[in-house]
Amino acid sequence: MCRWLAYSGSPLLLERLLYTPVHSLIDQSLHSTLGATTTNGDGFGVGWYGESETPGLFKSVEPAWNDRNLRELAGHVRSGVVFAHVRAATGTPVQWTNCHPFRHGNWLFMHNGGIAEFQTLKRDLQLAVDPSLFAAIEGSTDSETFFYLALTMGLKDDPPSAVAQAVGFIEATATKHGVVDPMQMTVATTDGTTVWGFRYSSEGKSRSLFYSEQVSAIRKLYPDLEILDEVDDESRLIVSEPLRDLPGAWHEVPESSYGVVQPGEDELHPFTPVR
Amino acid sequence: MCRWLAYSGSPLLLERLLYTPVHSLIDQSLHSTLGATTTNGDGFGVGWYGESETPGLFKSVEPAWNDRNLRELAGHVRSGVVFAHVRAATGTPVQWTNCHPFRHGNWLFMHNGGIAEFQTLKRDLQLAVDPSLFAAIEGSTDSETFFYLALTMGLKDDPPSAVAQAVGFIEATATKHGVVDPMQMTVATTDGTTVWGFRYSSEGKSRSLFYSEQVSAIRKLYPDLEILDEVDDESRLIVSEPLRDLPGAWHEVPESSYGVVQPGEDELHPFTPVR
Amino acid sequence: MCRWLAYSGSPLLLERLLYTPVHSLIDQSLHSTLGATTTNGDGFGVGWYGESETPGLFKSVEPAWNDRNLRELAGHVRSGVVFAHVRAATGTPVQWTNCHPFRHGNWLFMHNGGIAEFQTLKRDLQLAVDPSLFAAIEGSTDSETFFYLALTMGLKDDPPSAVAQAVGFIEATATKHGVVDPMQMTVATTDGTTVWGFRYSSEGKSRSLFYSEQVSAIRKLYPDLEILDEVDDESRLIVSEPLRDLPGAWHEVPESSYGVVQPGEDELHPFTPVR
Amino acid sequence: MCRWLAYSGSPLLLERLLYTPVHSLIDQSLHSTLGATTTNGDGFGVGWYGESETPGLFKSVEPAWNDRNLRELAGHVRSGVVFAHVRAATGTPVQWTNCHPFRHGNWLFMHNGGIAEFQTLKRDLQLAVDPSLFAAIEGSTDSETFFYLALTMGLKDDPPSAVAQAVGFIEATATKHGVVDPMQMTVATTDGTTVWGFRYSSEGKSRSLFYSEQVSAIRKLYPDLEILDEVDDESRLIVSEPLRDLPGAWHEVPESSYGVVQPGEDELHPFTPVR
Repeated sequence: MCRWLAYSGSPLLLERLLYTPVHSLIDQSLHSTLGATTTNGDGFGVGWYGESETPGLFKSVEPAWNDRNLRELAGHVRSGVVFAHVRAATGTPVQWTNCHPFRHGNWLFMHNGGIAEFQTLKRDLQLAVDPSLFAAIEGSTDSETFFYLALTMGLKDDPPSAVAQAVGFIEATATKHGVVDPMQMTVATTDGTTVWGFRYSSEGKSRSLFYSEQVSAIRKLYPDLEILDEVDDESRLIVSEPLRDLPGAWHEVPESSYGVVQPGEDELHPFTPVR
Repeated sequence: MCRWLAYSGSPLLLERLLYTPVHSLIDQSLHSTLGATTTNGDGFGVGWYGESETPGLFKSVEPAWNDRNLRELAGHVRSGVVFAHVRAATGTPVQWTNCHPFRHGNWLFMHNGGIAEFQTLKRDLQLAVDPSLFAAIEGSTDSETFFYLALTMGLKDDPPSAVAQAVGFIEATATKHGVVDPMQMTVATTDGTTVWGFRYSSEGKSRSLFYSEQVSAIRKLYPDLEILDEVDDESRLIVSEPLRDLPGAWHEVPESSYGVVQPGEDELHPFTPVR
Repeated sequence: MCRWLAYSGSPLLLERLLYTPVHSLIDQSLHSTLGATTTNGDGFGVGWYGESETPGLFKSVEPAWNDRNLRELAGHVRSGVVFAHVRAATGTPVQWTNCHPFRHGNWLFMHNGGIAEFQTLKRDLQLAVDPSLFAAIEGSTDSETFFYLALTMGLKDDPPSAVAQAVGFIEATATKHGVVDPMQMTVATTDGTTVWGFRYSSEGKSRSLFYSEQVSAIRKLYPDLEILDEVDDESRLIVSEPLRDLPGAWHEVPESSYGVVQPGEDELHPFTPVR
Repeated sequence: MCRWLAYSGSPLLLERLLYTPVHSLIDQSLHSTLGATTTNGDGFGVGWYGESETPGLFKSVEPAWNDRNLRELAGHVRSGVVFAHVRAATGTPVQWTNCHPFRHGNWLFMHNGGIAEFQTLKRDLQLAVDPSLFAAIEGSTDSETFFYLALTMGLKDDPPSAVAQAVGFIEATATKHGVVDPMQMTVATTDGTTVWGFRYSSEGKSRSLFYSEQVSAIRKLYPDLEILDEVDDESRLIVSEPLRDLPGAWHEVPESSYGVVQPGEDELHPFTPVR
């Protein structure tokens, strides 16, 4: 479906995240090994925090692997909180407004997976979006509607609870329409300070998701790893696929769980939809 | 806002309609003289009937004036019913799904103008769209929602009545939200056989709209006009702006009225929204 | 590198060539099985003959697999001579002018493969292009320069001889610069009546190329094959990869050879560069 | 033809240069008042210095006025040396590689105007480009060839001399081909520290070009002008059209002259092509 990367830590040039690693996200756009599809060429997006409270967005409908503007941006923009996403469309148009990450105020949200039979559920789901938010839905993806449901259910106050409620509502709506196992997701969201990453699917076989080991531990395992010179111990990645083959450096996010990357100790919790 | 052209008649290469005239639609994309904006460079679209019952669509987010694919298509596609539209965006994104004409089954629809404060009215308007049609709304324009309201109200059975009901509903919804004079429109719709063209605005000062005089009468006025060699007496154009300065060849569509271009005698009627 | 298809025969809707077959060219854009790369997502192009002597061109920098305009065009344009190409860029920008097929007058030309170290050879090769043609080179690919060399060497009078001279010149120029095995190619060219297809590489390991068996023979093997209802016995395809798995229906073009698809008996000859 | 802006001074968010002023470059893309064309909608480009010695580039083939990525970039990138350009194409394709500014190493170059009958002169001009640079020409504009001629003639060592030689060579080549008054130009080039701006045309009627008065003097005239809070006294703009109507704040660059914006005293000199 899609592949994504969320980074929080020492400010890095985007290219260190997007291009330098052997199996970088750009490489995954062309040669995904763990994804539902090999090619993720239906547009891409990058969101980053820096010059203002609201994050910047750069999205395009062209494949990431040969996009010159992305290469340029990556070589000239530095940030400490970065979301990046390469898309494999599943029915909805390839257009800017359908590219992830989505933004609302200073929040970003991105999604890999999908809502089964979204066209059937779409109206009921969008009716549940807060009327004051309804007109802000710009694209036509299931992911953006999911984001607006989560916003409606309090994403900005309590992300894990809001996502759990949104997923519960989607599952309940699906049941009403006879749609089985509607939710397939890995999701990341951030306010620019804390990053939340979720892995869940109704059928219990979720898309791949990994987080990086603590930098201090990776330093012991791979003292010569170049990138470690640039990042402090608070830095962490959540990714659809490991960016390099480094035994011990990556951990799978368990089924039905979510992680919190934040100043101080990070956290990992079980995730259960709330109906 | 936008400029458009609707043609019905002898099959012509699209370029005869889009490029050859002095003040062609392509020229209007760069130098509109009667429009609300001079430049209509936020994408374009062409719909045409030919090889199958469903019309073909070619749309692009780039300006029409330098688009090579449009130039190519226009030189190699011939059709007897053609809709073409150049867009000046008023707030919604420049994307394929926001370009006119819109299509549903074998019907096309295009619009110049807008619904005032559409973001405020959007939810109420979309809730009135037939639930079975709701998920087919792909873009985010007021025009497409208007089209789906008209479909909901019977466009395929009785276009003038459906458009009158849709406009009436939009005006009623606007009143409920305190929005004054919501509707500004010239609209064309067709099933590939008959073309309906509407001119109306809530405030009674509608965007420009013209139809061509009968070919037989133009022949008498301008016997040497080259294009006349290619068209039969049933051929007719409805346009936002006259394509050439030919006194006697163009008539303004009166305020609050609609025309029907069809086999046999064409018609012109008053248009009144139905609440 | 790339994949392509050349068709000559009974006029068909382009979709019958581009979308309907199981392993259609559009499928090959995402899942090439015999190509140097799996993904051919760096733009595409279609050229077809019909309404005028000069063929029409539709090209785009977006991947073919999700391009809506291509889908529309394919469903509404019918032609008896069609060239189509999906590109995997090898260094030069993804832009309209770098998409195949290339056109000069009523001729089309497309190429899969490449000229090794083209940046080193480019100036010498372009200096050999007829000065009257030089300014018409619009893009930056090795393929287009190859086309203009072939035009310079008489493509329009004797395609096999012109291509042999152009390849010979490229190989001689490469030798001068110490570039080994410079040429890798499958090429198709046409004037709208006859189609020439070439398979050659300096190293003798050329990219895959196939031609379809005579329609009359395929009819005996697969009497129920639907597409056969639409094509006459003169119809033939040359393709980078077979469009379906039909034993007996496809033949490999031998190494270092070229075929001629023409009214009457088609031909197959050895190909040798001329220095 | 085109409009451009060159800024050197205190690091600013790009939006302060591109969007905030009443008659900003983005406004000029839609409503140029002094340009040869009103609309400059055939792509745009921004170059800026910051995170590395080589400047970043962001270019697009879409009009600047509605480009979301440009809006985003402008709100999140800060730089002290910025080149920006909106294009009105004059015959060559609208593609990334034809958008200004052009870059070579750490140098940027942009051009408004044109070389008359460039297609006739193109081969002779490109043959004069240093063979080691030839293959780096990526696009098809007269402007890029002009840039490579200037690079060949020593742009990186002595810009005024190199530009004078390049213009002299172009004029001599034009004479040889019977092309009268070939050169029309305003040009800016920079190495990231110093900015050079040229105004010249063979016929002596050059496109408009202005430079801003010293910041200290503008402060006296307009003590409340908001932007002055953000810029130091060394800051200066060179622009195709004044960004605001502020009597005393803008000076026309005289015919046939060039200016140098540098640390310390800026300079203004006559410009004469060298044959």
